[in-house]
Amino acid sequence: MIFKHAIVLAAALTVLCACSEETVDRDLEAQTLMDLSREWSQRVGEGEMELAFTVWADDAVMLPPNFPMLDGKVAIREYIERANQIPGFKISWEPLRVQVSESGDMAYMIERNVIELDGTDGNKIVTHGKVVTVWQKNDDGKWKNVVDVWNSAPGPID
Amino acid sequence: MIFKHAIVLAAALTVLCACSEETVDRDLEAQTLMDLSREWSQRVGEGEMELAFTVWADDAVMLPPNFPMLDGKVAIREYIERANQIPGFKISWEPLRVQVSESGDMAYMIERNVIELDGTDGNKIVTHGKVVTVWQKNDDGKWKNVVDVWNSAPGPID
Repeated sequence: MIFKHAIVLAAALTVLCACSEETVDRDLEAQTLMDLSREWSQRVGEGEMELAFTVWADDAVMLPPNFPMLDGKVAIREYIERANQIPGFKISWEPLRVQVSESGDMAYMIERNVIELDGTDGNKIVTHGKVVTVWQKNDDGKWKNVVDVWNSAPGPID
Repeated sequence: MIFKHAIVLAAALTVLCACSEETVDRDLEAQTLMDLSREWSQRVGEGEMELAFTVWADDAVMLPPNFPMLDGKVAIREYIERANQIPGFKISWEPLRVQVSESGDMAYMIERNVIELDGTDGNKIVTHGKVVTVWQKNDDGKWKNVVDVWNSAPGPID
């Protein structure tokens, strides 16, 4: 009897181990995040700001250069709505690489961005930036941005 | 017999679920990371650079403001060794908050830094920065820095 119980226990352990290893498809999550970042940039470019705002977690932090830390989605929204009023303001970004945690609940991406403004001389001012974003998965399985930080690069990033 | 097997299976499942939840002590990992960051800053302050270099992962990326992305520890080392030759160069940092993934293999911290340089007029130039660091745990259980990005803040960060 004990021996049979042990076999069932061993079988249960094997099944469970196999299951827990397979629950997170990190490659799929990585692809989901790359797609999400590209779609997010596109939404912002098309001025669909309310859709864009859904990507930030309520407790997200944004760290814009030469500016205090923006703590929470309310502060982020205010900052972005002001930026959108700057003449000629345009921002776009593109993910370069992504890494997902084993548990599939946290990830980070290295990205690049381009910011445009109208200069006072009528010419466009274009700056290239390096970006790090951190993501956490909600209880409902949706990835949300929790950290958004960038700084300038001397030129376009490969 | 089947009923008894089911009981054993249920017991095994319960034990395993309980175990898997307890394997990662995220509070402990969070404290470990906060301590590691403070110790890292102290090592750099004391000029113990070889000890400091052990904290970066071989494939870490550093994103200094107004500079290209530094891809890998070799590029990071070169950048830091040059920075250390700047007259009066001093850097220190302090972690403000930390978040650890469920699996305990990835984490990020929001930090603040202070950089000092000698100005040409003989006065110190002091800049305050906002920092994001991302960490991954090695197979041997040691946390390594994989991303280090910062930008300037208008003044000291609370």
